Amino acid sequence: MGAGPGARDLLTLRAVQRLQEADVILYDRLVDTEVLELARRDAQRIFVGKHVGAHSWPQDKINQMIVAEARKGLRVVRLKSGDPRIFSRAGEEISAARKVGITVEIIPGVTAASAAGASLTRSLTERSVANTLVLASGAGCTDDPTPDSTRHSSPRTTTALYMSAAGAERISHKWMQQRIPSNNRVDICIDVSKPSQRHLVATFATVSETLSENDVNGCAVLLVTWPKQSAIRPILAHNSLKYSA
Amino acid sequence: MGAGPGARDLLTLRAVQRLQEADVILYDRLVDTEVLELARRDAQRIFVGKHVGAHSWPQDKINQMIVAEARKGLRVVRLKSGDPRIFSRAGEEISAARKVGITVEIIPGVTAASAAGASLTRSLTERSVANTLVLASGAGCTDDPTPDSTRHSSPRTTTALYMSAAGAERISHKWMQQRIPSNNRVDICIDVSKPSQRHLVATFATVSETLSENDVNGCAVLLVTWPKQSAIRPILAHNSLKYSA
Repeated sequence: MGAGPGARDLLTLRAVQRLQEADVILYDRLVDTEVLELARRDAQRIFVGKHVGAHSWPQDKINQMIVAEARKGLRVVRLKSGDPRIFSRAGEEISAARKVGITVEIIPGVTAASAAGASLTRSLTERSVANTLVLASGAGCTDDPTPDSTRHSSPRTTTALYMSAAGAERISHKWMQQRIPSNNRVDICIDVSKPSQRHLVATFATVSETLSENDVNGCAVLLVTWPKQSAIRPILAHNSLKYSA
Repeated sequence: MGAGPGARDLLTLRAVQRLQEADVILYDRLVDTEVLELARRDAQRIFVGKHVGAHSWPQDKINQMIVAEARKGLRVVRLKSGDPRIFSRAGEEISAARKVGITVEIIPGVTAASAAGASLTRSLTERSVANTLVLASGAGCTDDPTPDSTRHSSPRTTTALYMSAAGAERISHKWMQQRIPSNNRVDICIDVSKPSQRHLVATFATVSETLSENDVNGCAVLLVTWPKQSAIRPILAHNSLKYSA
């Protein structure tokens, strides 16, 4: 289930209904306690995230817990921040449940980019500015520790970079290599829709510094709209990751 | 306000609350009548979309209507399908209202790609398959009648193509030029979350034919996950739209 970006009232009606039907709820640190209050009082709440200074549950253990509880005939809700199909890593949990014949329903949610867009005065896609929105992740995983989060930079595109605080220095370095003016604007949307929501404005050159000066280390979405072709420096090079012209 | 992909229970709690506070509601053909039933009975409902065989309201007229009603001291809701910051063209309406000092609140919604993802068995982003999601539009506008909707095709990327039925032939032609196997899978998600929801599977080569054979002409999202570099034909060419390597 997608719990949305954080605010309790950004859950969908369907999510609230399923939460109220749940016998067991598995959640992690990204989900606000406010959201959990929508569940029945007698529902079992299991924190499967990372405690400060401790490791998070291994994925296998979460999968096993979901399967074990569902096999008891209980209704299990796995709460995920945002939308469960976008950067949620829900795939393994869903597969584990389906493999043993447990029925799975996926409930979409408001993704962080939408909430970040709502908090700004400009749109993510806009006539004659950007006709495409790219959702990329700044955080890597075991088989891809430093994802090429900037490969889709091109005119008429807005990029929303999720989980990007830790990788900001690497990413800003990549941006700077792309012959785009280093004063290109970066909107930093922090804890969007939560009481702690903040909005900072930086540039390619200052984003990493701005993040550390403001102690941003958690849920930040960076929004960049790429400048028109005419604004860039003239030397263009070949990108081997693209398939063709 | 984002009304989500169609189903009434995919509205957020915040959207329902504002809808119930609204004195005037402007909506178009993409919003289900079911959603409108959540509003107060005495709220004025104004259809500003396209009737069959007729033109839709000119944008100017919609802007003026929003401003005029708000200036009477009424609470005006402008309902948009999906999320108001993604392909909704809400920008002009928001600017018109802000220009005369009317307070605007933007309520994010579940975008069609999230709902399409929820209806499939696979995720939009997935470890070692796709680390990036691109939302592009198949439909053009006056200053960009045939948008380059396929420019972000690259390995480890999933593309969700909105409003793509009309442009499918052009888009599939572009895909075929990209040296990607013509049997690459395309999921066609139609009327996602609505009672008329359908899911068709096609390939780059058959997508246009599949759409016309099945009379798909409205709200279809095409989902494509781009194959790994190793699956493509070897000749790579330069893409002038990219900034650099």
